[in-house]
Amino acid sequence: MNPTASPDYIAIDWGTSRRRAYRVDAAGRILARIEDDCGARSVAAGGYPAVLAGLRDALGPLPVIAAGMVGSQLGWQSTPYLSAPVTLAALAGAATRVTAEDCTLTPGVSLDAAEGCDVMRGEEIQALGAAAAGLVPPDALVCQPGTHSKWITLADGRIATFRSVMTGELFALLRGDGSLAMLLDGPVAVGVAFRDGVSAGAAARSLGAALFGTRAAVLLGRLPVGNAAAYASGVLIGAEIAGELGDAAGTVYIIADDRLGALYAEAIGLLGGAAVRVDSHTAFVAGIHALQASL
Amino acid sequence: MNPTASPDYIAIDWGTSRRRAYRVDAAGRILARIEDDCGARSVAAGGYPAVLAGLRDALGPLPVIAAGMVGSQLGWQSTPYLSAPVTLAALAGAATRVTAEDCTLTPGVSLDAAEGCDVMRGEEIQALGAAAAGLVPPDALVCQPGTHSKWITLADGRIATFRSVMTGELFALLRGDGSLAMLLDGPVAVGVAFRDGVSAGAAARSLGAALFGTRAAVLLGRLPVGNAAAYASGVLIGAEIAGELGDAAGTVYIIADDRLGALYAEAIGLLGGAAVRVDSHTAFVAGIHALQASL
Repeated sequence: MNPTASPDYIAIDWGTSRRRAYRVDAAGRILARIEDDCGARSVAAGGYPAVLAGLRDALGPLPVIAAGMVGSQLGWQSTPYLSAPVTLAALAGAATRVTAEDCTLTPGVSLDAAEGCDVMRGEEIQALGAAAAGLVPPDALVCQPGTHSKWITLADGRIATFRSVMTGELFALLRGDGSLAMLLDGPVAVGVAFRDGVSAGAAARSLGAALFGTRAAVLLGRLPVGNAAAYASGVLIGAEIAGELGDAAGTVYIIADDRLGALYAEAIGLLGGAAVRVDSHTAFVAGIHALQASL
Repeated sequence: MNPTASPDYIAIDWGTSRRRAYRVDAAGRILARIEDDCGARSVAAGGYPAVLAGLRDALGPLPVIAAGMVGSQLGWQSTPYLSAPVTLAALAGAATRVTAEDCTLTPGVSLDAAEGCDVMRGEEIQALGAAAAGLVPPDALVCQPGTHSKWITLADGRIATFRSVMTGELFALLRGDGSLAMLLDGPVAVGVAFRDGVSAGAAARSLGAALFGTRAAVLLGRLPVGNAAAYASGVLIGAEIAGELGDAAGTVYIIADDRLGALYAEAIGLLGGAAVRVDSHTAFVAGIHALQASL
């Protein structure tokens, strides 16, 4: 599998719908990068060896370390969850080897606490990697927005606790069907409508009330229909952030792509927090690189 | 249209998906009743005269007064919204006559306030009718749960303000598609899982976080999948009620069918309120009867 005896390896952030793969050298530098729609949802059971072979054709015949939904029930093999608090070394210690494919799958992280259950797969590598690389302090609040946004509290460089918020999925559902769907065709970008939505979502008595307000505002001529998607996205993001920040608005480290990162940074600022953006590629590779040193 | 010269009339609570029609006598008593799926969504443009003729075949050749989504853009004719506060007499004064069909369509009610926009069509008749009939006090908090639940504050027997919460629609969307859909096949009834969900939804930092908790609890073996629908319904209803009750938990008058009425009464009690249930048929007909006296 590694006939070149290169010390390089392939790191994969393998989510439900997206895959990001990197060729990484012994110093942890990214030498090549592939990002595509080959998410765990799109790979058939039994299809992983062939998919990995294709990836190695592109990035080199190297060992693979993969994190994310590839290690879930809907992925290749279900790896266990480690209960928070966790470190990268602990994740390495609980990793699953698929020897025949020279591949290591990292475990997920769970929270099984009185205040609620939670799970994640993949985001833990980015958050711990950002801390390992000094991109965020060892004690920090990290936000990874998305389909199921993660809010991770780091303490002493470990994941102390976290919470998932299904903001992106709710927006997709509302856009797909129901009484708001017709109104949500427009673009979502930072602007007045988005900011108004953030304020409404943060101040609302409930998310369900603020979302209905989108429809009412359009019906009453208060909100141009072309702005309704930005407004409703703001409502969802505002409700999420207000819930997480509470009264103690401090610094939030956002690990996200440019589009979501810009929306969340704007909303966090509007709600009294300070947003610091961290590159998600750098964070992920730093996490895998620190983890593989412990394998 | 009224060859029998009967003083009776037909009152219709004509919603998006359901229609409830009553033959009412001069004293306001219900003589006959039809409830079916002939909602405004299912009647084609131009189809109303034929649909009304069918209804008159069943209930008698009588004048019709109809409230609800029949008077919206997706119904027969778009009637205006009256801005709260409103009374039944004001609704009568702004009603739309469809003379050729001997039919009166009542207007909707809107709220166009700094704290948010809102609209309703149909629920105002039930709430004001309940007050007119003495089923609720003139100063009361009224809850009408459903696809878009309404929380109406009555003051001096008028609708002073109100809020819509799209609880039922969110549940339907989550059941139809997305990461929870597979888990939400089970029944929704009052029980431990529903009550746990109500508590979780009321205490959660955000609705999106509490909903994700449903999935996490199933994955971690904390929630049997057969109970997940009841739990998630509880989360949504708990978040709605906690938002509306706030810290001032008092008496809530619920106008609902048996199934939703039971769920909301249980949840309101759990969250420190006192629930009083009011029959929705009686409330609606009382409202139309008082209104038609002002036509």
